[in-house]
Amino acid sequence: MAKLYFKYGAMNSSKSAQALITKFNYEEQGMAVWLIKPAADTRYGREEITSRVGLSQKADVIEESTDILERFRDREREFFDVIIADESQFFTPAQIEQLREIVDLYHVPVICFGLRTDFQTHLFPGSARLLELADSISEIKTICACGNKAIVNARLDDDGNVITEGAQVVLGGNDRYVAMCHSCWKKAIARGKEGR
Amino acid sequence: MAKLYFKYGAMNSSKSAQALITKFNYEEQGMAVWLIKPAADTRYGREEITSRVGLSQKADVIEESTDILERFRDREREFFDVIIADESQFFTPAQIEQLREIVDLYHVPVICFGLRTDFQTHLFPGSARLLELADSISEIKTICACGNKAIVNARLDDDGNVITEGAQVVLGGNDRYVAMCHSCWKKAIARGKEGR
Amino acid sequence: MAKLYFKYGAMNSSKSAQALITKFNYEEQGMAVWLIKPAADTRYGREEITSRVGLSQKADVIEESTDILERFRDREREFFDVIIADESQFFTPAQIEQLREIVDLYHVPVICFGLRTDFQTHLFPGSARLLELADSISEIKTICACGNKAIVNARLDDDGNVITEGAQVVLGGNDRYVAMCHSCWKKAIARGKEGR
Amino acid sequence: MAKLYFKYGAMNSSKSAQALITKFNYEEQGMAVWLIKPAADTRYGREEITSRVGLSQKADVIEESTDILERFRDREREFFDVIIADESQFFTPAQIEQLREIVDLYHVPVICFGLRTDFQTHLFPGSARLLELADSISEIKTICACGNKAIVNARLDDDGNVITEGAQVVLGGNDRYVAMCHSCWKKAIARGKEGR
Repeated sequence: MAKLYFKYGAMNSSKSAQALITKFNYEEQGMAVWLIKPAADTRYGREEITSRVGLSQKADVIEESTDILERFRDREREFFDVIIADESQFFTPAQIEQLREIVDLYHVPVICFGLRTDFQTHLFPGSARLLELADSISEIKTICACGNKAIVNARLDDDGNVITEGAQVVLGGNDRYVAMCHSCWKKAIARGKEGR
Repeated sequence: MAKLYFKYGAMNSSKSAQALITKFNYEEQGMAVWLIKPAADTRYGREEITSRVGLSQKADVIEESTDILERFRDREREFFDVIIADESQFFTPAQIEQLREIVDLYHVPVICFGLRTDFQTHLFPGSARLLELADSISEIKTICACGNKAIVNARLDDDGNVITEGAQVVLGGNDRYVAMCHSCWKKAIARGKEGR
Repeated sequence: MAKLYFKYGAMNSSKSAQALITKFNYEEQGMAVWLIKPAADTRYGREEITSRVGLSQKADVIEESTDILERFRDREREFFDVIIADESQFFTPAQIEQLREIVDLYHVPVICFGLRTDFQTHLFPGSARLLELADSISEIKTICACGNKAIVNARLDDDGNVITEGAQVVLGGNDRYVAMCHSCWKKAIARGKEGR
Repeated sequence: MAKLYFKYGAMNSSKSAQALITKFNYEEQGMAVWLIKPAADTRYGREEITSRVGLSQKADVIEESTDILERFRDREREFFDVIIADESQFFTPAQIEQLREIVDLYHVPVICFGLRTDFQTHLFPGSARLLELADSISEIKTICACGNKAIVNARLDDDGNVITEGAQVVLGGNDRYVAMCHSCWKKAIARGKEGR
């Protein structure tokens, strides 16, 4: 049975590297991979999936208005055996449903990498729909500076303070993100509120 | 590190049995378990966690208005080493945050069993917050009648047709639920719409 | 694809309960389960799979000389859709290979529950072959009295001291087993050697 | 609790890439990683861990006679917070026990990547001891050319026929390895025996 996979991880957990390695493994077995990413992700130039560990590949950029099922059925299906997506939290819920349909109708595996939650510990619309519809949910783990597993994507201002207010996505912003365990994140917020 | 666990599964995947077995294992090592469930679950009598496989135990019923952190801090903390919750999808988001705080502040493991999604493949408020805040997310698997893994909780009417409209929770209703894979669920809906 | 599963766990991790619950779930979907156990396991009477949590079922007892593939092909195949085995560490390596063949030739899932290691942290012959041939290896977790995960099956004498010498399997013996984390096990051995 | 991890995978499942990415993630959190490999692995030059996906790092080469616990205690402990090992199947059982001791005594996580089995589906001595002593066992998955998960490391001769006789490790040999699912591997052997 082909499956819809959601492989979620915190910031800097090597999700893009995992996407590119998975592509490499499929290709080595002679399969053709449709590598995609949502247009909302504009880091590193629009058409690249780039991992800080030192890997990079060109990907097909999916606009918010694209019907992925239609596009796959009418065009990509001829060429590809498997779909790998990075930054999947930025797909619309409708696009996740289209990926689900591709799995069910064409028996093509769809492997989505992405963030689970934003800087306020809320699901992104795309990750929420993936958590609802995926056949397989697994975590790409990374660690907090304390050594425990990191699960929160903390947004930091220029002074390194944790920010808890603001828009879910800040395009072109200067904010930095750090993966933290929940306990360290709460402590960092408390320190900020006490004026440090 | 104590963790917040979310062990999700479809209808009839033996979540309650797993909750009771986990309690048994902890108790055998000399630890005391606070077994809880939300008041919204009224099956089998309010105060029981019952598995169709043949296991049953009395649980503490948590009202929607209860602050679980407060109650744990002020009363249960003296007695219990670990918290096990069934039907966790019916906790409020605020209550999930209280369970998260118990893990962080008192280093007590909290193990939540529950449904991932409702009959329309949408997250319950409690399961959404658990998927956002849990340190560990794992699936209690069960199978569809076709042999594949089941992930959808199909609601059936008296004639066995899949229903896709209605309230998320129907208290005292006669509807039945069947766990299905996504593909069989879509086919069942399509059959219903064609008048079978 | 049907798979060969090995679900291993330490003593008292509820392996038998998991086997019986898995059987229940398959049967509820209308599938027939061939429930088997090796003759070497003589606890609770030869023909029962019994969990201390309060579940019990009659199982087919497989003698050491039985060719499981032959028996399945010639007789059981007519009746059963899935095979569930308890105490799988006591199957011979040849029998594990026969179960592997059943998966490959008849596309019947085989789900083996069993111990990973003996009281000296060495694999049983059956679990070694399962760890070599299984498509899916997963752990049924339980805890040490210290709260960490237990992985060692400590054998205790009448005075509660950890024993590290002796036969792998002691039939009819009075020894007790306790699941421990590796660190607590080493400490318990050291204490014993110091004459405590 | 620090843990001993065994992350096993078939040939070409990107184990070395995973080892290097894990190192990257730890270092990004300010931790120092002792990257090691057994001397028996002589591919790509003795001192490199290299992944075909395009990553490479220098590693500390551990001779078969080295007591890793002694070396860690006397020298490396000052510098390193975590140990990451590649090609761990080539460590001796005694060396795996030394890594286990490092976890227990110094609370330093040890993450071992390696093959599960050889070309005849038998455990390597190092992987057997890891499967006995690891706190956490997980699979780095890859696929067979048929699309199913690969679990067997098939050795091929110059004509591409599957070989099932020979030494476990052939140093400097020309044999190639291909990861296959068990069913395809058996079929390939059968084809070879039929003179195809």
